[in-house]
Amino acid sequence: MHIVLASASPRRRELMEMLGAPALRIVPAKGEERPPEGVGPEELVKALSAAKAREIAALSEKDDVIIGADTIVWHRGRVYGKPRSREEAIAMLEALSGETHEVYTGVTVIRGEAELCEAERSLVHFRELSRREIEAYVDSGEPMDKAGAYGAQGKAALFVRGIEGDFFNVMGLPLCRLGTMLRKQGVELL
Amino acid sequence: MHIVLASASPRRRELMEMLGAPALRIVPAKGEERPPEGVGPEELVKALSAAKAREIAALSEKDDVIIGADTIVWHRGRVYGKPRSREEAIAMLEALSGETHEVYTGVTVIRGEAELCEAERSLVHFRELSRREIEAYVDSGEPMDKAGAYGAQGKAALFVRGIEGDFFNVMGLPLCRLGTMLRKQGVELL
Repeated sequence: MHIVLASASPRRRELMEMLGAPALRIVPAKGEERPPEGVGPEELVKALSAAKAREIAALSEKDDVIIGADTIVWHRGRVYGKPRSREEAIAMLEALSGETHEVYTGVTVIRGEAELCEAERSLVHFRELSRREIEAYVDSGEPMDKAGAYGAQGKAALFVRGIEGDFFNVMGLPLCRLGTMLRKQGVELL
Repeated sequence: MHIVLASASPRRRELMEMLGAPALRIVPAKGEERPPEGVGPEELVKALSAAKAREIAALSEKDDVIIGADTIVWHRGRVYGKPRSREEAIAMLEALSGETHEVYTGVTVIRGEAELCEAERSLVHFRELSRREIEAYVDSGEPMDKAGAYGAQGKAALFVRGIEGDFFNVMGLPLCRLGTMLRKQGVELL
């Protein structure tokens, strides 16, 4: 039996290693599924995480446990994905400055025929940011591969007054919920 | 000018390095000050952080910036420090299981004559833990050098349903508040 993480995210990999997950394999899904339209953030991340997990489950051994995950930043009714340019990163951070946004991660855990699919929501409170700070942060290179253009586990820690919910959800993998889902699939991490 | 962290905590050191703090020096305070009696958790951690910062400020260059910090877990009117035995670690985790506790960190930043001293509070929600999980966690060795017998940035991530406040405060250093204090003392981290 392997635990197979169907994600290319280095942060998710680090978190699974931090938990000491045994027999961990990383097999990133291509994730070419088109996102469902006209659904809320919870349904969206659940659908995208399930598509990733199913893609890799089809290539895996019968007893493997496959984990798919998808994270979005949600603010004023809009999805904030990874910024496509320096300008877009600056615009995202200006929109988040001084406000509270939501982070949703969908998690799907598949073992054989059993598929569990859930979503976790956290609130993130940003303090007011100056234009100078935003530009210095974007120029550090940290935002470009991250939904919402920030990494709460990096220098953007200086921007986050506080959160409500699971911090690791903001990093991309809600560990407490994932632990419970894995236990239901027969895997104990402790 | 150096930024001098007056703490032996490897977690605080990692957090300062994560922020890319320039010219960082680690000079742990002995912290032999007796804690004040009959005060609440905020006053307690502020006093202990100030004692550490002043101890190291007395040994430092005039232009250095000294950071002292002290973190406690507070639950039902009691301070939870580092466990002194396996049994005490188990008892602490049993007390925290299924409940919400508080984490307070006092931070003191000294530069020359200017001393800033503040405290940050976070709430931590634990899920219900089984005796087996608690023993497995304690036997992992993770709890023994940590206030409250857990590390939120380790395997105890599986225990924490969610928090309210600054996650890094729970790790021992409230980074957003510290960044603002450092700015007031003339140090920009971004």
